[in-house]
Amino acid sequence: MHSVGKSWLLLTGFVFFYVIYLLFGALVFSSIERPVEDKLRHDMERLKEEFLNQSCVNAASLELFLNKVLTANKYGVSVLRNSSGRSNWDLASSMFFANTLVTTVGYGHPTPLSDAGKAFSIVYALIGVPFTMLVLTACVQRVMHPLVLAPVTLLQRSGLKPRPATVVHFLLLLIVVVLCFFLAPAAVFSVVEVSWTFLDGIYFCFISLCTIGLGDFVPAARPGQQYRALYQVAVMVYLFLGLMVMYLLLRTLHKMADVHGLTTLLQLPRCEESVLEEDTEPIVSNDPTPPQLKDKAASKPLDPGSQPSYNSINKG
Amino acid sequence: MHSVGKSWLLLTGFVFFYVIYLLFGALVFSSIERPVEDKLRHDMERLKEEFLNQSCVNAASLELFLNKVLTANKYGVSVLRNSSGRSNWDLASSMFFANTLVTTVGYGHPTPLSDAGKAFSIVYALIGVPFTMLVLTACVQRVMHPLVLAPVTLLQRSGLKPRPATVVHFLLLLIVVVLCFFLAPAAVFSVVEVSWTFLDGIYFCFISLCTIGLGDFVPAARPGQQYRALYQVAVMVYLFLGLMVMYLLLRTLHKMADVHGLTTLLQLPRCEESVLEEDTEPIVSNDPTPPQLKDKAASKPLDPGSQPSYNSINKG
Repeated sequence: MHSVGKSWLLLTGFVFFYVIYLLFGALVFSSIERPVEDKLRHDMERLKEEFLNQSCVNAASLELFLNKVLTANKYGVSVLRNSSGRSNWDLASSMFFANTLVTTVGYGHPTPLSDAGKAFSIVYALIGVPFTMLVLTACVQRVMHPLVLAPVTLLQRSGLKPRPATVVHFLLLLIVVVLCFFLAPAAVFSVVEVSWTFLDGIYFCFISLCTIGLGDFVPAARPGQQYRALYQVAVMVYLFLGLMVMYLLLRTLHKMADVHGLTTLLQLPRCEESVLEEDTEPIVSNDPTPPQLKDKAASKPLDPGSQPSYNSINKG
Repeated sequence: MHSVGKSWLLLTGFVFFYVIYLLFGALVFSSIERPVEDKLRHDMERLKEEFLNQSCVNAASLELFLNKVLTANKYGVSVLRNSSGRSNWDLASSMFFANTLVTTVGYGHPTPLSDAGKAFSIVYALIGVPFTMLVLTACVQRVMHPLVLAPVTLLQRSGLKPRPATVVHFLLLLIVVVLCFFLAPAAVFSVVEVSWTFLDGIYFCFISLCTIGLGDFVPAARPGQQYRALYQVAVMVYLFLGLMVMYLLLRTLHKMADVHGLTTLLQLPRCEESVLEEDTEPIVSNDPTPPQLKDKAASKPLDPGSQPSYNSINKG
């Protein structure tokens, strides 16, 4: 029980540091980008005023004006009147941006304007992307037992053979995921985002949870969006849980392929089983001997070269 | 030697089908999106003409005009005179888009305009993303021996202990990757893309190879780019090789963590060793027994429940 508590404590710690890392990123991005954005926004307002004050608009001046408008727009600064009030780099939006960086979704709305912002993005993602992968992996490991091992065992006990049991389980899991992480959120988005259709919602969910993140649909980008910050936080939670579930689905598929001998057929790396052994195993173990080595030690003589190497570590 | 040839044949087949899949995607995207884009482009040209023919520009008409300009720009159709000639959905650009979809980089320039294009993107990525992962995994497996196992063995033979050998090897690999896949391409991009600085190049390489793909910097997007199609194909090859190398680096890091006992400490899934055994092993094996089972069969009694299940497959 002690080790279970410890393992959950470590996981909670991971998630806590993940949130802290996002908040830290949000603060830095906001402080770097907000002044640059404010200046660009101010410049654009002046430019628009000057354009309107012209006695006559000719093709050349329009071209020049549009060029500047489109460049500013690329950096997320719109010249439209109804969007001139809101910043892309307030705390919630910066946190949303930081989240899309570390999850590799990367919508690209907004993008850093300054060189300092770009350099910080690189450093931030360099640490953040592997850390997010670690947090997601640790989270998926915690839910593998209740969502994969237990249901498959249950199906086997109810009379199904192992191979059909894994297929039935995978299909059931897929249906639940499609319902809860694609159809339901798409319905919500099509209501909350006025200009989105249901297909747009599905498209957004799919493009986001595959981490493609094209950025043609970004939630909370509409001017005058109510409770924007809260909405952005909700989308961040959705993205995290969604990526976790996609990873879970991928591992379940990989395991199913293992059971059906497909990974062996293609000689691809097999899915690890250690996490399935028991949900109650600690993430941090006080015993430095890997469980695989322990299992094998009983049945094989000790290797004279006991220090692990690339060649020997998994062969015990 | 026969099996080696077979394994390379299968890998070549994978890469061949990958290219065919990209070409197929390019053809479909181009045929769906090009007419929609042409219509939007034509509409925008007419709109611009009408705007210029107005006797006097007022704030309201400018607002309406800019709204339409920015919406069209979101879909990759620019009203600027120097970019009105080129399409985002010619064959090379469509292939580039298909490539950013299946690699999950997803710059988002361009994005599908029509509902048919969005629906096809979902289906295309649904098959393409796992297939690309498979091709990348198979490619990385083929280079693991010459780039990871052989150099580490060499370092060990030259007197280094296994743990320091893995660290030295990882650092050397990291330096080579940074030089060949970040610094050198960044230098090339900063020359070819007139408006990019060297930092922009580094930022583009990093954001792309982490599959974040913000899309604020997209190669070959400049109007009047020479040899655009060839350049786009070169970037696609760079992206593929770069992603392969990033995956290789990640696996090497994972293996190093294994050797140092870090994955055991955090009880994370360990990196597979099977691919490191010998580069000469076939991808397709005629013998259906997994190598792990073969190893263990000699030292452990046969399990009475011989059919593999989630609980038993890796425990032999």
